[in-house]
Amino acid sequence: MRELARRLASELPADAVSEGDSVRALHGQDESFHREVPPDLVLFPSSRSELVAVLSAAAELEVPVVPFGAGSSLEGQVIPASGGASIDLGRMNRILEVDPDSFTATVEPGVTRLELERKLAESGLMFPVDPGADATLGGMAATNAAGTMSARYGKMRPNVLALEAVLPGGRTIRTGSGALKTSAGYDLTGLLIGSEGTLAVISELTLRIRPIPDATCAVRITADSIGTAGEIAELMVATGIDASRIELLDEWEVEGLNRIRPGSLPAGSVILVELSGSEAAVASELADLKGLLSEADGLGLEVERSSAGQRELWRTRHDAMAGEQAMAPGRQCRSTDVCVPVGSLTETLVETRETIDRFGLGAGIVAHAADGNVHVGIMLDRDDPDEMRRGELLVEALAESALRRGGTCTGEHGIGLGKIRLLEREHGDSLDLMRAVKAAFDPDGIMNPGKVFEDALPSPTRNK
Amino acid sequence: MRELARRLASELPADAVSEGDSVRALHGQDESFHREVPPDLVLFPSSRSELVAVLSAAAELEVPVVPFGAGSSLEGQVIPASGGASIDLGRMNRILEVDPDSFTATVEPGVTRLELERKLAESGLMFPVDPGADATLGGMAATNAAGTMSARYGKMRPNVLALEAVLPGGRTIRTGSGALKTSAGYDLTGLLIGSEGTLAVISELTLRIRPIPDATCAVRITADSIGTAGEIAELMVATGIDASRIELLDEWEVEGLNRIRPGSLPAGSVILVELSGSEAAVASELADLKGLLSEADGLGLEVERSSAGQRELWRTRHDAMAGEQAMAPGRQCRSTDVCVPVGSLTETLVETRETIDRFGLGAGIVAHAADGNVHVGIMLDRDDPDEMRRGELLVEALAESALRRGGTCTGEHGIGLGKIRLLEREHGDSLDLMRAVKAAFDPDGIMNPGKVFEDALPSPTRNK
Repeated sequence: MRELARRLASELPADAVSEGDSVRALHGQDESFHREVPPDLVLFPSSRSELVAVLSAAAELEVPVVPFGAGSSLEGQVIPASGGASIDLGRMNRILEVDPDSFTATVEPGVTRLELERKLAESGLMFPVDPGADATLGGMAATNAAGTMSARYGKMRPNVLALEAVLPGGRTIRTGSGALKTSAGYDLTGLLIGSEGTLAVISELTLRIRPIPDATCAVRITADSIGTAGEIAELMVATGIDASRIELLDEWEVEGLNRIRPGSLPAGSVILVELSGSEAAVASELADLKGLLSEADGLGLEVERSSAGQRELWRTRHDAMAGEQAMAPGRQCRSTDVCVPVGSLTETLVETRETIDRFGLGAGIVAHAADGNVHVGIMLDRDDPDEMRRGELLVEALAESALRRGGTCTGEHGIGLGKIRLLEREHGDSLDLMRAVKAAFDPDGIMNPGKVFEDALPSPTRNK
Repeated sequence: MRELARRLASELPADAVSEGDSVRALHGQDESFHREVPPDLVLFPSSRSELVAVLSAAAELEVPVVPFGAGSSLEGQVIPASGGASIDLGRMNRILEVDPDSFTATVEPGVTRLELERKLAESGLMFPVDPGADATLGGMAATNAAGTMSARYGKMRPNVLALEAVLPGGRTIRTGSGALKTSAGYDLTGLLIGSEGTLAVISELTLRIRPIPDATCAVRITADSIGTAGEIAELMVATGIDASRIELLDEWEVEGLNRIRPGSLPAGSVILVELSGSEAAVASELADLKGLLSEADGLGLEVERSSAGQRELWRTRHDAMAGEQAMAPGRQCRSTDVCVPVGSLTETLVETRETIDRFGLGAGIVAHAADGNVHVGIMLDRDDPDEMRRGELLVEALAESALRRGGTCTGEHGIGLGKIRLLEREHGDSLDLMRAVKAAFDPDGIMNPGKVFEDALPSPTRNK
């Protein structure tokens, strides 16, 4: 490690190599519940050539490296659990090109999604993947991030057309192309997306961008229970209401939101819907939605067409984490997610609430309903070993339940440190193939070791 | 080979193992221009367990195998160029489940897209990937097929949620899940899709299906030249006209269509557009489209709302190959495709016509305009070596031109036998990684050797 720092000191600017405690501490954690492990060294390349120098030296010295974007991963992906160096890509943050004629944008990996959003908005364009945090595009690709609009537009994978990536050792490859589709060889773009920094470091991305819809409209529906909310959402999906977002919050979440803004919501479970498209399409979908709901009783249907009104309605969703905190002061949130076939959404939601209660834990449920993605924020006292254990068992129970229904142990958050055993449970029959792919890209096992798979190879080389 | 036939004779029904000349001849060709090479043996497994028996014996005896669906591949993918056995999956043709609540369908690989279309239509559902031929779903996944609606719905990759695949040696794996999204480990589903039978044999697919839109409308526009047609298509895309299909046919194609149905089309280049969605959305998009075109002169705009009228308009597109044949009686069609960034569509179309003319060949241009996918049907006389050579040079020139514009050497057809050198040209920097992936799945190199990559390993074992 000292050797790596010494060598890179001559190849990178002085301020691009840091062993300071505060810098290391900042790179030892993400937004997950996993324990902090500071890296031994933090590197800040500001160009591809500097990144090449880093990966060339790291491979030669067999030092583990962990790519770091905004630190907003949710399963410990950026935590250097096996030691080594953190590669902070925040200085590779240029938007290289926006091509409105071809609907593509090419960016460096450290550009955040809100920076890109602002730039694209100047041309009436948008990028449709919106995880909660202001993550970097590189990190979003590495974790195959999703968001509230994934049922319509897909996650990162179908929205990234091409990648440039630097392999351990410093070799640079380019995958995909600037065209919207290709059949040229194996899908290395899709393989790098979601590989959680275990194969290579993404150094450039070409994204598929879209026109901002002419019109949007937000609808808030209140249901008496999460079960009823699930049924309404399933009905919307089944009857083909073409919403761009269908978000659910359960009664516990709503109670939390009412604690931070008393009286702001009726008691119950909330469904937030966004319709978007042409003015005529939005009007037509809204009429269909109202027709669909007219037979249901007691749903406080609120429709907002103004920008300000829509922002206010969506605040409910954005404040969910604050609401969870208000329900359990002093506890910390362990966020977990599963994804089930959409037709199993309601039973999954109902069972999730029963399971939370059975474990005697405080937790809220939020769902991206249109693709069956259920998030649970479990509030835990780190100093209570029994509660911590029940939290762990709850995460496993939710995943087992999703797998039983033909779903997956994670729809968005990925494997990282937190779901390695669940990945073995879900895809044990092909893990050796995934490991062989890993070995092809990273023969010395220096790329983010200990993530996705249990065996970190090589063993930590802190003393080098 | 004799040993494989002998061994499988005891494990498969008698009619599932054939060495007959006519059966072999049928499995030695596809719809491409590549020379026929009959397999030594044709196998017809009718269940996963029979497929496992085939792949187990083939691996043990190191006999190359080539998966075969409907034989509609366009770059020689199913031609056993290195000898060995063809595995015809046509008897694995059951639709196992349609789940309208979760918008999924699970099928065996030999189900064809029209069989699935008929079944899904009973429930008001559809699968949106529509290559020209009535291909099998397994073959469509293996080649990452696309079609006229890919700009809106994507190719096979985002529309396949889960796969079951049998590896050489007979081991079965399951990738993905029944949920609409997952972040559980590397994307082996996406890797198998588009691997052209070189990694494993797909034995089951879970597809994402969609509701049939409430309304559709077809529009035919006539432009004086392919350049003008390209400009109109680019304008439609740039202004956000949300068409489900935008198909272009150049003047040469239109002339061919007028030869088979005299006077059916005005001279020029034709743009066929489909609008689909809710009644209100279609009406609104149609109004926008008419507004957009009102400033352009001399476009014979024809709008068809009736089913019969739409079918008639779309006949123009379906008959394209017959039109090409009418332009060059006695010649055979070599079909090739490239894909470019949408903003380069017009210049690509114009240059494509110039390049065809420069080579002195007869060829028609058809394009899926919304995703920049350009197809050229080159009519060639197999007995004219010079014309054949010019055909080869034209294919290369079109690919080089697409690569120069940041596109890809194939948007849909894949690599197969025909574009191996062009894949090297496009992705030479990562071919070793693709080969390493191949080695992980297929260590003995028995899966469709000689496709995608040049080196067929092992060498043909016809004498075993």
